[in-house]
Amino acid sequence: MQSERPIVGAIEAGGTKFVVAVGSGPDEELLARAQFPTGDDPQKLLSEVIAWLLEAERKHGKLAAVGVASFGPVDLDRSSPTYGFITTTPKRGWKNTDIVGPFRAAFPKRPIGFDTDVNGAALGEGRWGAARGIEGCGVEGVGLEDFVYVTVGTGIGGGGVVRGKLMHGLVHPEMGHIPMPVLEDDRFRGACAIHGRCWEGLCAGPAIEARAGKPAAELAADDPTWDLTARYMAHAFATLTYVLSPRRIIFGGSVRKGGKLGEAAFFAKTRTHLLDALAGYIDSPLLTPTGVEHYLVPPLLGDDAGVCGAIALAHDAWRDELRAKSNND
Amino acid sequence: MQSERPIVGAIEAGGTKFVVAVGSGPDEELLARAQFPTGDDPQKLLSEVIAWLLEAERKHGKLAAVGVASFGPVDLDRSSPTYGFITTTPKRGWKNTDIVGPFRAAFPKRPIGFDTDVNGAALGEGRWGAARGIEGCGVEGVGLEDFVYVTVGTGIGGGGVVRGKLMHGLVHPEMGHIPMPVLEDDRFRGACAIHGRCWEGLCAGPAIEARAGKPAAELAADDPTWDLTARYMAHAFATLTYVLSPRRIIFGGSVRKGGKLGEAAFFAKTRTHLLDALAGYIDSPLLTPTGVEHYLVPPLLGDDAGVCGAIALAHDAWRDELRAKSNND
Repeated sequence: MQSERPIVGAIEAGGTKFVVAVGSGPDEELLARAQFPTGDDPQKLLSEVIAWLLEAERKHGKLAAVGVASFGPVDLDRSSPTYGFITTTPKRGWKNTDIVGPFRAAFPKRPIGFDTDVNGAALGEGRWGAARGIEGCGVEGVGLEDFVYVTVGTGIGGGGVVRGKLMHGLVHPEMGHIPMPVLEDDRFRGACAIHGRCWEGLCAGPAIEARAGKPAAELAADDPTWDLTARYMAHAFATLTYVLSPRRIIFGGSVRKGGKLGEAAFFAKTRTHLLDALAGYIDSPLLTPTGVEHYLVPPLLGDDAGVCGAIALAHDAWRDELRAKSNND
Repeated sequence: MQSERPIVGAIEAGGTKFVVAVGSGPDEELLARAQFPTGDDPQKLLSEVIAWLLEAERKHGKLAAVGVASFGPVDLDRSSPTYGFITTTPKRGWKNTDIVGPFRAAFPKRPIGFDTDVNGAALGEGRWGAARGIEGCGVEGVGLEDFVYVTVGTGIGGGGVVRGKLMHGLVHPEMGHIPMPVLEDDRFRGACAIHGRCWEGLCAGPAIEARAGKPAAELAADDPTWDLTARYMAHAFATLTYVLSPRRIIFGGSVRKGGKLGEAAFFAKTRTHLLDALAGYIDSPLLTPTGVEHYLVPPLLGDDAGVCGAIALAHDAWRDELRAKSNND
């Protein structure tokens, strides 16, 4: 009987850095980990990453599968000739880059799992982190069937799980670009190059810096930008609540840390504004002043959410292949 | 071998009227159909509906199952003591009404399918209507795996199918209440009693009437309200596109007919504004001036979408019970 969760290779392909690991889960199951700056030369970087993985494989044993959780937009359509490519990114050097092919070539006969970075992180949080049920919210210790993972950092991205499956659809969700209401008296024009005042244009790190004149991490606890940001975040979370009806929203990324205000205080503000935005319309014990602490939560896997998500993608690809083989036997 | 799609009873429970039918599908498969004003006395109405169904059953043969697609909010949680209830509706007489129980009692040993009216309509359009694939969009003739059905009439509701399954989640989606951007110079305060300027507060029938001074159906083709409404609709559809990444959006309900402007012209306006709102961010052939005609579409089942959805809910409940039985044998 083979292990349910074998040792796999995992790549979190981010716009700033690639995190690479070998292991079977978070914490002590993460056997080796390294990171590389993304740069503007994909071929060189991918060669380095593959060399590191092959070296780790010599030390830790044959990798059963590889998982890639990538920044995007990516092509997730298995019937497409550019499946596994980063497509229209403005990131220098990375447009139309095949990010799955090199791993398929380097690890022949091993399945390669592939999805967006945020979908990967959602999967990781569902398996090992903040989307597992707790008393009163889903089955204890089992991943929730319906939740959404949002990361707010350099940009904003979201990954959703609906009835136990990651959302893909036509391309993949791009939740960071939803249109937003204007809060009274706010004259900030927004920082999104494409949409101006979309969610990302109002709440991502660069938007906060453009509005406040300094990076979020350095922003004083009493800077009014925090309250305004929390109010915009609340409107976006209300939108996700109305559209997706999730059982939990996981709010990750660097902005959630709330600079000098701190994570706990920024979450408290955002939760209060979320209940205000919903105005009691959704009748659920989770959308009350006490329940909302279990509805809008920080991630549990922290900086390892992405790479653990890539491990989960590898495990799913491995399991799907085992099933397909046993159906063919 | 029993029929794949037996004759069932179907109830579309709307806030204005109940449409009741007996049959196995749309058009000539709809064997009998009646409608009743909803009124404010649920017990009386439900008795009349049941009497009509029992009479139709005597004529057309035993109903294999019953499907109820209801206005809401409803309780869809099968483990809840109020499963099958209309819960917090402001509609006089209908708060906390058990809408499944009376059918269970009247049709013993028959499975009762139950969902929201918009989820029912989405299911019906997926099985027989506008969410079936056409050349270049999904597998021809097969229901799309990912789409959303939106109805804009007295209110706004949305039902989504993600990877082949209806969305439910914590309660159920309430897409009509998403926050909206303010379009420049628009001083209309919105007509939603709870949120003011949410989607429903800006685009539903009562909002159009409050803004323009006459009902949508009577509004002249050149009334500027049409363009403004189309622009708000476009922002809401952009939100659904970013959050759900559907392969198609079906836009149903009375407002879509565009009053004296007409349905084709109102759809053309809304599609153009949708592409403007997305600003080219989602790279798909469906989100281009020619492709968008297959992306944002009217329903195909027309006024029968709701009751056909209830037939589909009954069929699914019947099939689920057959499967459960064969697993137990």
